[in-house]
Amino acid sequence: MQDLLQRFWAGEPRALARLISILENEEPGRDELMRQLFSKTGRAYLLGVTGSPGTGKSSLVDRLTALLRQRGQKVGIVAVDPTSPFSGGALLGDRIRMQEHAVDQGVFIRSMGTRGSLGGLARTTREAVKAMDAFGFDWVIVETVGVGQAELDIMHVADSVIVVLTPGAGDSIQTIKAGIMEIADIFAVNKSDLPGADKVALEVEMMLDLHSPQMSWRPPVVKTSTVTGTGLEDLLAAIERHRTYLLEKGLFQQRREERLRSETLEILDRQWQQLVRKEMKLSEEVNDLLDAVARRQTDPYTAASSILNYVVANSGPRQKNQAGPGG
Amino acid sequence: MQDLLQRFWAGEPRALARLISILENEEPGRDELMRQLFSKTGRAYLLGVTGSPGTGKSSLVDRLTALLRQRGQKVGIVAVDPTSPFSGGALLGDRIRMQEHAVDQGVFIRSMGTRGSLGGLARTTREAVKAMDAFGFDWVIVETVGVGQAELDIMHVADSVIVVLTPGAGDSIQTIKAGIMEIADIFAVNKSDLPGADKVALEVEMMLDLHSPQMSWRPPVVKTSTVTGTGLEDLLAAIERHRTYLLEKGLFQQRREERLRSETLEILDRQWQQLVRKEMKLSEEVNDLLDAVARRQTDPYTAASSILNYVVANSGPRQKNQAGPGG
Repeated sequence: MQDLLQRFWAGEPRALARLISILENEEPGRDELMRQLFSKTGRAYLLGVTGSPGTGKSSLVDRLTALLRQRGQKVGIVAVDPTSPFSGGALLGDRIRMQEHAVDQGVFIRSMGTRGSLGGLARTTREAVKAMDAFGFDWVIVETVGVGQAELDIMHVADSVIVVLTPGAGDSIQTIKAGIMEIADIFAVNKSDLPGADKVALEVEMMLDLHSPQMSWRPPVVKTSTVTGTGLEDLLAAIERHRTYLLEKGLFQQRREERLRSETLEILDRQWQQLVRKEMKLSEEVNDLLDAVARRQTDPYTAASSILNYVVANSGPRQKNQAGPGG
Repeated sequence: MQDLLQRFWAGEPRALARLISILENEEPGRDELMRQLFSKTGRAYLLGVTGSPGTGKSSLVDRLTALLRQRGQKVGIVAVDPTSPFSGGALLGDRIRMQEHAVDQGVFIRSMGTRGSLGGLARTTREAVKAMDAFGFDWVIVETVGVGQAELDIMHVADSVIVVLTPGAGDSIQTIKAGIMEIADIFAVNKSDLPGADKVALEVEMMLDLHSPQMSWRPPVVKTSTVTGTGLEDLLAAIERHRTYLLEKGLFQQRREERLRSETLEILDRQWQQLVRKEMKLSEEVNDLLDAVARRQTDPYTAASSILNYVVANSGPRQKNQAGPGG
């Protein structure tokens, strides 16, 4: 593990890839790795890109990446597909994308799919983003397929979120309904070389008129085309404007602090669950209570209260001696 | 609350509707309500029906319901749409469905959408199912739109799961790939009056040949049509066969016991979280630790350990006196 971290700090892309695999596979030492990475995180700008399948998100991210590279920025990309059981860049599309940037050490692409629960994917994505951040990328782009709740949850990691729409796909209004409104900082109407782009852009502007006159940031609507190259500079300019807005309003700092707080509480809950699992191995009391529920002799709520009392009462002193840095 | 429960036990549908709203809106007393319902749950047979949008799931559920009603069975239906922010039967489609059964006290339909997180929806659905179970329905049918991870999670509540496919929709093989294979107890090839139904059925059978030769239950593939009425009796017979299989193998009991155990652990985690929240209000120590993380003076993992130690050490005695039924 220390050898891996040494190679990671030395900037070896393979060490980064291996480290993300450890996080993704939930291998032992995962938490300790994250703990050691922490001090080097917080530097990268985190950009989220989401939209329905077929909106051309990946191409858009590739073009944005090329622009950022021209400016000397290093870019890490996490491509998340909640419907895919594949990960680690095994998909053909990702292979092709990676080849494009293969000679460029300033770009790293990682794809992630659902192995377990959706909650697990959001966590793994967040950790992969942190790993890329610590590795030294200036930008980390998280790209998700689809517009469901899972994708929205994943997007919470980002400082700025681009929602990608396309003309004619008939998804503009529906997409906006599905809770995208609250998460979009910028709308990209991609494939704007196709007919209907103006209509989609207008629909979004009308939605914004209705919903966000009171907002201090009105999401700009940028027409882009990865075929003609139209609007890509505009899109990057919009991102930079949003970044400046966040910094000037103090929101950048505030949001990141809130995220750290909620991450800590999540980690706390996992540590609690580990404590319960340990108690289930060490003592029969907890298992007896679970058995009583299974036999319907007691209800789950009463049993849970009893288990809580038991674990708290029994872990107090032991926990104090074991877990190091406790207050 | 006691008045509501009295009307609930007296069999008033409005009391059931109100009770589900309390669960859904996370109103105070929600846990206590669930605790009081517990002793009357466990009687209904829980059927899950899932499939892509447009496969005719709702019509299929309606026809199954009609068949069950002919046999004197009372049926509760929970229609879950993870992509919809609407709930409480507010959707036009559900209104129409409800009118169909409006004069029938033996049928109750409730639709649920995503208000918060997907995890929240799975929990609320499970609780609504329990409420219908306790109310006295012989069958509770949970119907979900789509085939994502969220829908799979929701389906865990069911004793038997029907996956609905259709000819020509091009979703048969993809659907099976997306993890449906493990969850389907029965496949329904609906709209079998359309061309291509045999092909879809054959594809599924081939998949089953590949994947489940070692399974003790091979999911039957039933061709159905809600237009012609074909296969509906066959589908119900397949469900009854699966139910008998579960009972004979002892799996029915085993699965329900496992579900009660994992529900208890989930409730335990929520009670822990409430304890942490209470501690955050009462003492400054926990908040100080969170502030230290926000200021990046300590990492989230170290801070979480310290909070865990603190809450356990400080809640022990107080918790013991407060929470009633503890061991």
